[in-house]
Formats: sequence, structure tokens, C-alpha cells
Amino acid sequence: MIKVVLLGAGNVATHLFEAFQQSNEIDVVQVYNQSKNRLRSFKERVSTTTNLKELKKADVYIIAIKDDAIEKLSNQLPHTDRLIVHTSGSVSINSLSKHNRHGVFYPLQTFTKGKEVNFKTIPICLETAVITDYIILEKLAKAISQAVYNINSTQRKALHVAAIFVNNFVNHLYQKSNEICEEHKVPFEVLHPLLLETAQKALEMNPLKAQTGPAIRKDQKIIESHIKNLSTQQQKDIYTILTKSIQETHGNKL
Amino acid sequence: MIKVVLLGAGNVATHLFEAFQQSNEIDVVQVYNQSKNRLRSFKERVSTTTNLKELKKADVYIIAIKDDAIEKLSNQLPHTDRLIVHTSGSVSINSLSKHNRHGVFYPLQTFTKGKEVNFKTIPICLETAVITDYIILEKLAKAISQAVYNINSTQRKALHVAAIFVNNFVNHLYQKSNEICEEHKVPFEVLHPLLLETAQKALEMNPLKAQTGPAIRKDQKIIESHIKNLSTQQQKDIYTILTKSIQETHGNKL
Repeated sequence: MIKVVLLGAGNVATHLFEAFQQSNEIDVVQVYNQSKNRLRSFKERVSTTTNLKELKKADVYIIAIKDDAIEKLSNQLPHTDRLIVHTSGSVSINSLSKHNRHGVFYPLQTFTKGKEVNFKTIPICLETAVITDYIILEKLAKAISQAVYNINSTQRKALHVAAIFVNNFVNHLYQKSNEICEEHKVPFEVLHPLLLETAQKALEMNPLKAQTGPAIRKDQKIIESHIKNLSTQQQKDIYTILTKSIQETHGNKL
Repeated sequence: MIKVVLLGAGNVATHLFEAFQQSNEIDVVQVYNQSKNRLRSFKERVSTTTNLKELKKADVYIIAIKDDAIEKLSNQLPHTDRLIVHTSGSVSINSLSKHNRHGVFYPLQTFTKGKEVNFKTIPICLETAVITDYIILEKLAKAISQAVYNINSTQRKALHVAAIFVNNFVNHLYQKSNEICEEHKVPFEVLHPLLLETAQKALEMNPLKAQTGPAIRKDQKIIESHIKNLSTQQQKDIYTILTKSIQETHGNKL
């Protein structure tokens, strides 16, 4: 049984709590949060506190709060001999280095409040200073997920940027696509099957090989007519830069 | 029973042929192609020809060939009193206007050779010059798909550009993301669940509301550190232009 204290009561903390509750190998002994209000939903299910001095003894302390508050909270923790980890994709393990036992427990997924997630398929990226602590985190991660990876801080930083490309930026392209549809009174749902097929294809084959369209065909006539017909400078800029990048990428490799 | 002649033997023609074969309401009476070689796979299942003068009588003639060859082939057809349609997202209905009965039958999906598709969920966008022909195309489309839309040429052109955003451009972002992972020896599969969740979310809610990340949070410190750490000018340009576009889009709407 691994004893866990969760520090934080936001989206990530809540989803981790629910996942840990499903496992017989994990015992969440306490949830800490600075403000009492956000602890309400935990109160009847687990011991809670707003006082760091009242933290219970546990095998792992998981800090699941906003990136820029992690270091400060970590410095306020009264222990140096316990395993302290954060859950951030972009904060270095070194921000916890005041504690001689520290690590990272980073679940790579977007968590939406109120929307249930299946943790079994969510990748968890682990990093520790020493191997003995890695074994503890690995046991913890494998109790809730089938996708556990050893990822160091440099890799995690790269992974976080790569995640921004497939999540934030892709979503923005969806939005621009939706915008173009709305301008012409075409329902965006017409594009839903294509959108999903494009994503599913990327899981099956290298996206480099899946590339199609006027950019890779170097169909300059179509490209120019598309740019001319787009209604905003933003749309034109995005179309131009991505077409250029596709052509450069594939020009080099052909 | 709707009688169909298919003109073309490429990806779209092949997939349409297979879908039509599944339906009791459609009879593909002939497949035409300029070159004999590509007709081989059809030969044992349907009448084939390489001679336009031998075209059989049918209710609909579907031209499923490359965009820039459509008008030429259409002009070579010996009839003016039959319903001639093409399957292209970017060619105007007017390229068929020599024929007094003309239309568009555009299935909006990426077709990969050898990969089976479920036509039932593929949107088919229809356009005709007169309503009586629309009724024929609608019957044909509904025999193979549950998603049939009336889309005029201006709308179809916009839809085609919008499709480039969710397919070609999104796939290129997947590829850049993959590239960043490879540079840091991180398996791209770590990002698969996030990639798929991002796509699925776009089917459930407006992508405008689903936007997250440092760009919309205006987290300038993180943004600068990301751009600094990207290894190629392409990656930096894409990161910069999409971040700018997210901020402008959401700055205006906040």
C-alpha cells in the first residue's frame, strides 16, 4: 500500500484522487489546499487540511497546483526526508531540489472539469533523483495507468512543447476551420469524420508519410486561389506559413 | 435502380465502386478509364472500357479523376442530355456546363488505397443545376451515406479550404510534434492519447471554447522559453504565428 498526500484541489488533483481511489494499492491519506472552499468536495471522503504543519506521514507527496506556485509551496513543506513530486510538464525537477528526495509525476492529458477520464490509457511521465524513489513512483503510476514512461526534465520540456503542437495548435486550426465554415454557412459537422480520420491515421502511420494536399503537390494555382479567398489576415498567415513549412519539409526529404 | 457509369479508376472511383456494390438501389453498369492497366481490378466484376464512344446508357455519369483533367474529359463526352457529375472539392460545377445536365457529387474524406472506409459516415456534398437532378443525386448519395448535404460551389470551395486546415495542416503539426519528440528521443506514442482526445473534443464542443495553453493564458515567459528551445526556424515560425493568432482571436473575444 502506497500512502499518498495530495497538495492541491484543482483539475489534476481531483482526477488523480479519483484514479487513486480506484486502486487497492494506493491510499490517499490526506488532501491539502490553501483555501478551504475548494476542499469541500473532498471533505467527506478523505482527511483534509489547509495547514502544512498538519500534513500526515506518506510515501509520496504530490504537488498538483499551478506551475508558478510549485516552487514556493515546495519550499514551505516542513520535511526534507520525504519524497516530494510535482505533476507539471514544464517545471524542472530542480525546482524541488531543496528536498533531498524529489521527483516528477506528470500525467500527459488535458483534464476537463467534470469530464471523466480513463486513466488506464493516460501516459504518466516519471523522473526522480535516485532509482529507489523511481521504483516507488513507478509502482504508483502503474497502479492507475498502463502507459508509464521514464522521461527526464529536458525530454519533458520538449514533450510539453510537442504537446502544444498536437493539442493547443491543432485545436486552433480546428477553430479557424470552424470559422471558415461559419462564414459560408456550412455546418462544421461536415468536417467531423475527416478531422477524426486524420487523428486516427496519425496513430497508425508516421505523419510524414500521411501528408496530402495542394502544399505537398506544389499546386501553386490552388494555393494562391485559397489564400486569395480567405477572409482574414490571420487565416492567410496560417495558410501561408504552414504551406511553406510543408513544402520545405518535404522538399528536403524527396 | 439508379444506373451509374464511373469514369476513372483511382482511389475515389475504387472506393465509390465498392460502396455502390453494397447497395441494392445502385447498379454500376460500366467503369471507364483512359488506360487499360488500371481497369484490371474491375474487369471481372463490371463492364469496362477505354473508349468514350462505347459508354453505356446510365442515369448518372460520375467523373472521379484528377482535378485538372475533369474539364477536358467532360468536354470529350459525347452526350449533352445526360447527368454528368464530378467528385472534386475544388472544381466549380461550371467546368461541366457544356452539358445541360450537370452536378457535383463530392465525398469529403481522405481515401487511402487499400484501406477500407465506412461510407455510411462519410459526408457527401451535392450540387446540381436543377432540382430534378438533385433528387437523383440525393437518392444515389443516401444509398451509401447517412450524411448528405446540399452545398453550392462557393460553399464547397470554402469547405475545401476548411478541410485543408483540419487535415493537411493538422497532419503537418502532428509531424512537427513527432519531429520534436524524435530530436529528444521521446516516443511520439506518449502523445497519442492527447492527440486523439483533442480531436474527439472538437466533435463535442466549439473549439473556441476548448482552447487551452500558454498562448491563451498569455504566459509570455513560457512562450519565449519554448521558442528559444525549438531547434528549427520552421518550428519557431509555426509556434510564433499560431501563438499570435490564438492571442488575437481570443483577445478580441474576451
